Amino acid sequence: MQDTQRFSEATTDTVTAVLTEAGKMCDEVMAPLQRNGDLHPARLENGVVRSSPGFAEGYKAISDGGWVAITADPEYGGMGLPVVISTAVNEMMSGACLSLQLNPLLTQGQIEALEHHASDEIKALYLPKLISGEWSGTMNLTEPQAGSDVGALSSRADDNGDGTYAITGQKIFISWGDADFVENVCHLVLARLPGAPAGTKGISLFMVPKFIPDAAGNPGVANSLKVVSLEHKMGLHGSPTCVMSYEGATGWMIGAPGSGMKAMFTMMNNARLGVGGQGVGAAEGAYQHALAFANERKQGKSPFDTIIGHADVRRMLATMKAEIFAARAIALDCAISIDMGRATGEAEWDARAAFLTPIAKAFGTDIGCEVSEMGVQVHGGMGYVEESGAAQFYRDVRVTAIYEGTNGIQAMDMVGRKLMDGGEAAARLLDEIEADAEAAKGALPDLAGAVWEAAETLRETTEWLVAQPMAERFGTAVPYLRAFARVLGGHYHLRAAMADPDGAHGRIARYYITRLLPEHAGLLGHVRAGEAELMEISPDDLAA
Amino acid sequence: MQDTQRFSEATTDTVTAVLTEAGKMCDEVMAPLQRNGDLHPARLENGVVRSSPGFAEGYKAISDGGWVAITADPEYGGMGLPVVISTAVNEMMSGACLSLQLNPLLTQGQIEALEHHASDEIKALYLPKLISGEWSGTMNLTEPQAGSDVGALSSRADDNGDGTYAITGQKIFISWGDADFVENVCHLVLARLPGAPAGTKGISLFMVPKFIPDAAGNPGVANSLKVVSLEHKMGLHGSPTCVMSYEGATGWMIGAPGSGMKAMFTMMNNARLGVGGQGVGAAEGAYQHALAFANERKQGKSPFDTIIGHADVRRMLATMKAEIFAARAIALDCAISIDMGRATGEAEWDARAAFLTPIAKAFGTDIGCEVSEMGVQVHGGMGYVEESGAAQFYRDVRVTAIYEGTNGIQAMDMVGRKLMDGGEAAARLLDEIEADAEAAKGALPDLAGAVWEAAETLRETTEWLVAQPMAERFGTAVPYLRAFARVLGGHYHLRAAMADPDGAHGRIARYYITRLLPEHAGLLGHVRAGEAELMEISPDDLAA
Repeated sequence: MQDTQRFSEATTDTVTAVLTEAGKMCDEVMAPLQRNGDLHPARLENGVVRSSPGFAEGYKAISDGGWVAITADPEYGGMGLPVVISTAVNEMMSGACLSLQLNPLLTQGQIEALEHHASDEIKALYLPKLISGEWSGTMNLTEPQAGSDVGALSSRADDNGDGTYAITGQKIFISWGDADFVENVCHLVLARLPGAPAGTKGISLFMVPKFIPDAAGNPGVANSLKVVSLEHKMGLHGSPTCVMSYEGATGWMIGAPGSGMKAMFTMMNNARLGVGGQGVGAAEGAYQHALAFANERKQGKSPFDTIIGHADVRRMLATMKAEIFAARAIALDCAISIDMGRATGEAEWDARAAFLTPIAKAFGTDIGCEVSEMGVQVHGGMGYVEESGAAQFYRDVRVTAIYEGTNGIQAMDMVGRKLMDGGEAAARLLDEIEADAEAAKGALPDLAGAVWEAAETLRETTEWLVAQPMAERFGTAVPYLRAFARVLGGHYHLRAAMADPDGAHGRIARYYITRLLPEHAGLLGHVRAGEAELMEISPDDLAA
Repeated sequence: MQDTQRFSEATTDTVTAVLTEAGKMCDEVMAPLQRNGDLHPARLENGVVRSSPGFAEGYKAISDGGWVAITADPEYGGMGLPVVISTAVNEMMSGACLSLQLNPLLTQGQIEALEHHASDEIKALYLPKLISGEWSGTMNLTEPQAGSDVGALSSRADDNGDGTYAITGQKIFISWGDADFVENVCHLVLARLPGAPAGTKGISLFMVPKFIPDAAGNPGVANSLKVVSLEHKMGLHGSPTCVMSYEGATGWMIGAPGSGMKAMFTMMNNARLGVGGQGVGAAEGAYQHALAFANERKQGKSPFDTIIGHADVRRMLATMKAEIFAARAIALDCAISIDMGRATGEAEWDARAAFLTPIAKAFGTDIGCEVSEMGVQVHGGMGYVEESGAAQFYRDVRVTAIYEGTNGIQAMDMVGRKLMDGGEAAARLLDEIEADAEAAKGALPDLAGAVWEAAETLRETTEWLVAQPMAERFGTAVPYLRAFARVLGGHYHLRAAMADPDGAHGRIARYYITRLLPEHAGLLGHVRAGEAELMEISPDDLAA
């Protein structure tokens, strides 16, 4: 639905103030906590999660500043700002301290889900507490036998006959399943009513709070749920990854029976863009870290007396910067599409946002991994030593390519659900890219030509892919998504170069378009090679 | 010099027996230790390194089996086997337990250096003990201010007037700088004589044992050196990375004054191939691990009822297998060139080996990182949990892209020193590739054509690169090395496909040549874009 008043508060002055304040909080409060989370992981003590030193104070700064949910409905205490602004703020917070930022990111997703699907009563009870940050939110999908295949989950919801349900089951990989710096932790849990159909159609969604709110809406009696254990992970040690047990816990249904996946998708779409932003933020953090090192570290002869003078170090830093710009632009453009969809009520914007979401998630987090990996390399031997901090960026961000739907799942969503329109949303994006390239041909003929050609190759492959049976698209979905991201990256770089042809951005854009964009050709060749030959490689062949 | 008898022992029966026995030892003894090293890192206790549980027994199996130095001179107790066999054995040991394998790998490098550069007296004293594995060897290059720029080192060697030197200085990043499962640890240390010229020309090499051998050649008085501390690293926790302090320690010069870097390069070339093999081994370990998981893990609907039936999982596994084959073939071909150089005394073989060495190191370790990274992804959420073991492969192998000369340094060696012949060695390799592709055109026209075309593009870019001033080659050295590896990979895959066109290998080769080889085009475009535009991106641009 249309909401032309939605962003009336988002004046240039407000936005500038918001971004400046958020940046200050990230620098001064969150960034110093990053290493605490790694050195002193969250731990489970008598069934309660004890967060890393300083995280409580860090969280207080986030909630006091109103940073938990700046897009939320002002009716419930939110700022009602555009998603594009929260995307920028989330990126900054991710770059400063990813493990702590994950907590409010999940709360944001829950707020979004409740705004869309909860009853007025539930909204009135939960939204103000979630938006203020007094309470936090989690998502409970995964079970030991049901990961990427959510439809296989078996948690049970029995009707208590009083408007509540008794939730029973085990959930795994629950990020921030408990936190000692909030009054209450609100779990959104997927479960099945007795006799519900198999698969995703039989899944309903329930709000299951750690403490059942009393008549005044304050945390009351403890619910029948607990954190069983925490995972020992490769990174993100500041964020507790919980095994949760629900033992007849009291829950309230959100939305209609069997519509749990629909509501969860609202939460997941928000979260997917948010996780893409985590990748970009971590990449930016790793980049700033590596750049500072390269400017300080003396080694060998160079015109600058530090390693930034070495051509191979310059190559790595230029690549990092160019990739971050591309991934950030995709995330922000996706956010703008969401905002425009809400403001105008036009379905085209929603389709654009839906198409860009898996790209923002997968490419953003892949770039997070790749850039932080290069950050380690810029540091040389020191990069492998934890003291430098370079390794932590890499270890922490690695999970973002896995959670909220692995990047393989994102790519399958893209070639499956997001091309079900016969490639319309894709074609509209390619039209935009080609139109901008046409307009740039006078000023920057070589760069504009390269972007136009790349878009045209991508268009041909997209049309070819749409003509393939759905079941035969998945084996090359990942290279297709990557190629689309590459071309989009060229597009945004070209626009930036048009605005600053002889400046820093013109040079970075030239670097990207000349040296990184060409990757699309090999990737699209991979797509065109099709899935059949891949599937001929049998499990026996792989074991040979 | 020619040594036609060198490999007379390496009959098919012997080689088969050697590889079978080594594989058995890796499976039964070393692989079970891999996680011990991670969970119970080597630690420093009263100045002595205590190795991870089981490592002493593991090392005993390695030394008892004669696996420390199978290529070493039979005169001193070695088996005199070809380097290609030790490359295969090293790969297996790396895949089983990388942190423990690094110990004998370093000893191998030291043996090689002593065989080439030490006096007969030093050889007689040290080689039998190193070859048997009673003593181990280390390399001491890096100092806090001298990493990639070895010439900046400042450790001092004062003549004691009795044929020995007093070595004083601090060395960092010394792998296995101490071990509690050997009688003695022999340090090869780079240091400067008083008044020696600055830079690499003023560097000499010294043998500095932990215990000074007594008259009978047994470990005697403790030398004036110590382990100051161990680094806390991202991985490879079973291998102690030591800060070493030499305080007037007694050393014996190896080779002539000022020739230290030459001797060290003997050791490093061996070690660089060895480290490339570590990358391949770790990749193979990660691959076997991921394949087993994919065959067991049930999730969603698939014809196989496990995730190996999913096209995207199949894509990852096929990519892993194809990449490992390419990297392994490069390493083995490099080893064969070393062996042929020794057997025939022909300089062409030595030049071929020298050209392939940086490719084997950098591509082997890059593939180690990339394949183990995909191994994490195949595991989904479990990949991020340390319990699965997938993450350890990645964390452990990451250092191989850094140590023994970062992969950037390898690429600079390639476009610098290794193209100083005007591109002759490169051209000869390309001739081989094109000749084989010509021969395959009848049977496998599409694959052979793709490899031939790729080689030709690489040839043109190589000729272009050779025509550039040396100082302007380094900024695109990394994409050049990668492109060369890609094309070599196509070559070896094509050869394998010719041998097994309708079998497993034919299918894997088709996958590589159709889907992975095309990456070379974008990479070579990157090279041709030149260094000048890259260096125009200033430190200020990067900070903008």
